Amino acid sequence: MAVSWEQSVEHSINTIYLLFSAYLVFVMQLGFAMLCAGSVRAKNAMNIMLTNVVDAVVGSLSYYLFGFAFAFGQSNPFIGTDYFALKDIPSSNSYEYSFFLFQWAFAIAVAGITSGSIAERTQFSAYLVFSFFLSGFVYPVVVHWLWSSNGWLSASSSQLLFGSGAIDFAGSGVVHLVGGVAGLWGSFIEGPRVGRFDAFGNAVSMRGHNATLVVLGTFLLWFGWFGFNPGSFDKILVAYPTTTDEGNWTGVGRTAVTTTLSGSTAGIVTLFGRRLLVGHWDALDVCNGVLGGFVAITSGCSVVEPWAAVVCGFFAAWVLIGLNILALKLHFDDPLEATQLHGGCGAWGLIFTGLFAKEEFVIQTYASGEIGVVRPYGLLMGGGWGLFGSQVIELLVIVSWVSITMGPLFFALHKLRILRISVDEEVAGLDISSHGGYAYAHPEENHPRFYTDYVRMHDEES
Amino acid sequence: MAVSWEQSVEHSINTIYLLFSAYLVFVMQLGFAMLCAGSVRAKNAMNIMLTNVVDAVVGSLSYYLFGFAFAFGQSNPFIGTDYFALKDIPSSNSYEYSFFLFQWAFAIAVAGITSGSIAERTQFSAYLVFSFFLSGFVYPVVVHWLWSSNGWLSASSSQLLFGSGAIDFAGSGVVHLVGGVAGLWGSFIEGPRVGRFDAFGNAVSMRGHNATLVVLGTFLLWFGWFGFNPGSFDKILVAYPTTTDEGNWTGVGRTAVTTTLSGSTAGIVTLFGRRLLVGHWDALDVCNGVLGGFVAITSGCSVVEPWAAVVCGFFAAWVLIGLNILALKLHFDDPLEATQLHGGCGAWGLIFTGLFAKEEFVIQTYASGEIGVVRPYGLLMGGGWGLFGSQVIELLVIVSWVSITMGPLFFALHKLRILRISVDEEVAGLDISSHGGYAYAHPEENHPRFYTDYVRMHDEES
Amino acid sequence: MAVSWEQSVEHSINTIYLLFSAYLVFVMQLGFAMLCAGSVRAKNAMNIMLTNVVDAVVGSLSYYLFGFAFAFGQSNPFIGTDYFALKDIPSSNSYEYSFFLFQWAFAIAVAGITSGSIAERTQFSAYLVFSFFLSGFVYPVVVHWLWSSNGWLSASSSQLLFGSGAIDFAGSGVVHLVGGVAGLWGSFIEGPRVGRFDAFGNAVSMRGHNATLVVLGTFLLWFGWFGFNPGSFDKILVAYPTTTDEGNWTGVGRTAVTTTLSGSTAGIVTLFGRRLLVGHWDALDVCNGVLGGFVAITSGCSVVEPWAAVVCGFFAAWVLIGLNILALKLHFDDPLEATQLHGGCGAWGLIFTGLFAKEEFVIQTYASGEIGVVRPYGLLMGGGWGLFGSQVIELLVIVSWVSITMGPLFFALHKLRILRISVDEEVAGLDISSHGGYAYAHPEENHPRFYTDYVRMHDEES
Repeated sequence: MAVSWEQSVEHSINTIYLLFSAYLVFVMQLGFAMLCAGSVRAKNAMNIMLTNVVDAVVGSLSYYLFGFAFAFGQSNPFIGTDYFALKDIPSSNSYEYSFFLFQWAFAIAVAGITSGSIAERTQFSAYLVFSFFLSGFVYPVVVHWLWSSNGWLSASSSQLLFGSGAIDFAGSGVVHLVGGVAGLWGSFIEGPRVGRFDAFGNAVSMRGHNATLVVLGTFLLWFGWFGFNPGSFDKILVAYPTTTDEGNWTGVGRTAVTTTLSGSTAGIVTLFGRRLLVGHWDALDVCNGVLGGFVAITSGCSVVEPWAAVVCGFFAAWVLIGLNILALKLHFDDPLEATQLHGGCGAWGLIFTGLFAKEEFVIQTYASGEIGVVRPYGLLMGGGWGLFGSQVIELLVIVSWVSITMGPLFFALHKLRILRISVDEEVAGLDISSHGGYAYAHPEENHPRFYTDYVRMHDEES
Repeated sequence: MAVSWEQSVEHSINTIYLLFSAYLVFVMQLGFAMLCAGSVRAKNAMNIMLTNVVDAVVGSLSYYLFGFAFAFGQSNPFIGTDYFALKDIPSSNSYEYSFFLFQWAFAIAVAGITSGSIAERTQFSAYLVFSFFLSGFVYPVVVHWLWSSNGWLSASSSQLLFGSGAIDFAGSGVVHLVGGVAGLWGSFIEGPRVGRFDAFGNAVSMRGHNATLVVLGTFLLWFGWFGFNPGSFDKILVAYPTTTDEGNWTGVGRTAVTTTLSGSTAGIVTLFGRRLLVGHWDALDVCNGVLGGFVAITSGCSVVEPWAAVVCGFFAAWVLIGLNILALKLHFDDPLEATQLHGGCGAWGLIFTGLFAKEEFVIQTYASGEIGVVRPYGLLMGGGWGLFGSQVIELLVIVSWVSITMGPLFFALHKLRILRISVDEEVAGLDISSHGGYAYAHPEENHPRFYTDYVRMHDEES
Repeated sequence: MAVSWEQSVEHSINTIYLLFSAYLVFVMQLGFAMLCAGSVRAKNAMNIMLTNVVDAVVGSLSYYLFGFAFAFGQSNPFIGTDYFALKDIPSSNSYEYSFFLFQWAFAIAVAGITSGSIAERTQFSAYLVFSFFLSGFVYPVVVHWLWSSNGWLSASSSQLLFGSGAIDFAGSGVVHLVGGVAGLWGSFIEGPRVGRFDAFGNAVSMRGHNATLVVLGTFLLWFGWFGFNPGSFDKILVAYPTTTDEGNWTGVGRTAVTTTLSGSTAGIVTLFGRRLLVGHWDALDVCNGVLGGFVAITSGCSVVEPWAAVVCGFFAAWVLIGLNILALKLHFDDPLEATQLHGGCGAWGLIFTGLFAKEEFVIQTYASGEIGVVRPYGLLMGGGWGLFGSQVIELLVIVSWVSITMGPLFFALHKLRILRISVDEEVAGLDISSHGGYAYAHPEENHPRFYTDYVRMHDEES
């Protein structure tokens, strides 16, 4: 028997919604590549862009072969074991290809976050090892716990922890905190870049080489976040029985709005906060502030009111500003601030959801608004400790899991002397030492008059 | 009672259509940032990119708190007073979140246009004031007049001016002319950049620092315009009762085509026109020409035939070329040509719609193709003076309204000496004087051999 | 009689799907522009970006006026003659505007491919002639043969060649091979760039000026390919009668997955393959490898299993690596490797489809899964020689047709001495000789201290 017209319509609508959201999430990979490239020195630009490309291409094969299986296979609450190499997909009881693609776009983002923390000093072959392990195993397991229908911490499971499960709608914890904690260990074990702190322990500024790329990357990430957060409903065509005109389409729209408001508020706070602290209007700080606001709202974007998103962004900015000051004091060197931004604001996002989630939205998002469902919700909204407790558990569990897996890995690579490049290579730059040349041709080559002078000068001296 | 399946389908389809269109419009903010950055000198790149980021983040909060309320509240024909901080949204009688997001993306674009006119010489704090006032008050009021269901000039009101109302479908006037006129006053009151005209009154070329960014920005704006114009139908699932297979989906597609044809024609005319005038094939001129064609068609894109869009683009190119020549003669210095492009081509767009709007398309776009509806249409198409008159009224009213609001604001900032930076700051560049550093690291730092020579040379001299 | 609600829903869904896919395909034009700009020397960046802009704007008018008519008019199996200037579009028996826009975005891409082959040495006026001829005539004719409903080689015709027709779903042959073969002739007739091979016949590296732009372009092309391949179903709301829950939406999702897997596999193989061959991890090679994988899967993306896409990408990488080695040996200079990449991998893609197309998917894609339909499919899958033979025919026919049209055109331009620029112009660069200035301001102008030194130095010498 063929599929009915009504089902065809539903499948088509949901597929368009999810696939185009996936495409937007994919754009975040480009956003990361540009943000990272602009934030490092020109001599390492090719290296960090290659890591972003490699995250995507290696992640495609590993997620196809086993990552997706670990994440969404349905065998047990701890790790999945179905759907290796897309076996049985699609079929009437399993996922559509569009769902795979959407999740793939998430998976490749995780290693990209960590690549920022260990930028400018990591051997490329070590990068390949860590990226493969992180996005192929460590991350999918966390996804299974939080997002699969039988994960032990999942808010859509039939066995809800504390009657609630942790709400991490689009992954402040699952994606950003995972990437941030991995980055923390990598960056900590590698130590600061050569010259980042002088003999007296003072920080030496190491500005990225191109602010235009940073702004380009930030806007592309913002664009992609419209897929990341609103797209995480998976299906848009779901009506709520409790209202006369609302359904997931309302939630999708509201999620786009809360996302925008949180990022924007964080950006404004950073603009004025940094103005007060450092005395100038810093575009790069604002970019990072906006991203911090996005990272924080990613957990609760679908279950909070717009005004709460403003609160979320406000504190996200201070979390980032505070952690950056702390990092400087501790001589912790994360070239992209990825630990502080994705780790710190991601952690805040989990807590925020535990405080501000609204009952009605929780029921709509996680039970399609079914009548009679009772769920814990935000502590400050009067929803009790069930949700807040689950959020804290998620936070602790992610920090622990990533630490006991990625920590030893980085340590082993370090002990084997295949983690960090030599000082000579670091001074010369990764591009010339590992990638066959600089990212940029020397501009003077293209300016004949200047070039001639330069050569003549050079000749006269010799 | 829950929402019916049919309504769910309609809501889902229209939400996907409008939200993804909103995302595209948002990309225009990135497009502006890149276009502007590439068009100014490197020493001001960070500054102008920050203004674009700030337009977005400040605009989010102000549009959320009151801008949207002024624009789409339904109280009276002059200014709205409902929906502050998204109160009552969504509910069965009001707007969806997706509509807010779409309109937000428009609102943040306006100040971006003006930022180009006053580039390279404006104090950042003055920028904050003007941007907040323009996108938070001046622009929403114009939106209310033209696009809300009870605006006095609106083509979808129940009380149509001249039985017609002004047709400004996606905002040649509402968005571009508003931004252009604001830019005219800002740029006029600030005066030209230092060195733009020499002691003899001759113009000195001040080329932007990066043509690649200009092309990048232009293409991104083109991409975004596919959300701006076709997205402005708000709903795609509206059938026309007069035909057997047409509906808003047809209009949406045609609008994408007219938009493309007008921009392309303007680009071609500029390519050959400038070749004749200046003797070379200028990529940057062509980019601006394309954008001029888009600005002009934005008013009538949904109500004209494809052939008319070619006519629209043809004249838009000459409007831009002519105004640029005039600006030079008058020693008017708008670094991005925003006044000429958004103001001039925006004005032409309003007139064009009054001349070429087609009866059938007007009725389809503004009355869902209802049978028996009679509406004025393009003067040259035999549609009488009702529409043309309304278009002229819109043009005059926007120029007046923006002039009496923004003119005094810029003048007051000028008199208070907080509008323009000092000559020293202007020569050094805004990035180093106000934003803590240049956008770019010096390339020689990354080229050891050259750097060594440079240092040795330097040492020998001292 | 008005259109029914059901039809409205279908039209709306299919229009959203196709229009947003078209927008993505359009982004490829930006991707090409950035990829090309980054891959040439800075002195020619403006030139090659202008060619990409010109492809878009000239292509709009020519495709509107006659290109689309040649391609999809229904008169005879060899060239179409309906729909000039969009006459009769839309009407109940013809195409929607959205289909035109989707096809337009394809048409403008073709000349962009070829622009890479003849980069850095071609007169701009010659470019205008060739681009107009290629995208206005040569390409639309091929489209007619392969994609129109009465094309003699089409897989959706009522008269199937060998009972099969050639399967070139999104155009490995129609788009990429056409562009590549045109590039082959252009590049061959023009000869290598000045200095590309030294007096001893050794190749001299001519690196592009900006690897960041190459990565930016590559990711944008990837993003756009999600419109190119999955979008080529034209309609998403088509149910298959043979299954209980599948339809074109399944095919669309699978196509996105096969596309991703082929490109990714090709990228990985190139990463390690080039590491073995040249000893470093080369980001630019990986970018080209990814693109080669996309080009190859473009023909069969909708009719092969995901595992087969991995096979496709694996060999695509080696085809590209091999042809690049061969090109060097033959002193063939294609600055963007467009001949090798789009021509070589495009040709491999046609063959691949003839080997690996799966029966079920062929019937679903080309007969909406109709029961009882029998079609040849992949040779290695047991589908006989019908499809494989058609693929070989397509390959031969495209090479021949493009050669007999574009070869003489390039040769004539060459003989008339209007094809290639002079050696002086080539050394100085096209931007200064033909386009009024360089793409970039000299960075030292923006660095006062350095600039002063430079001037002083200069003065002392004179």
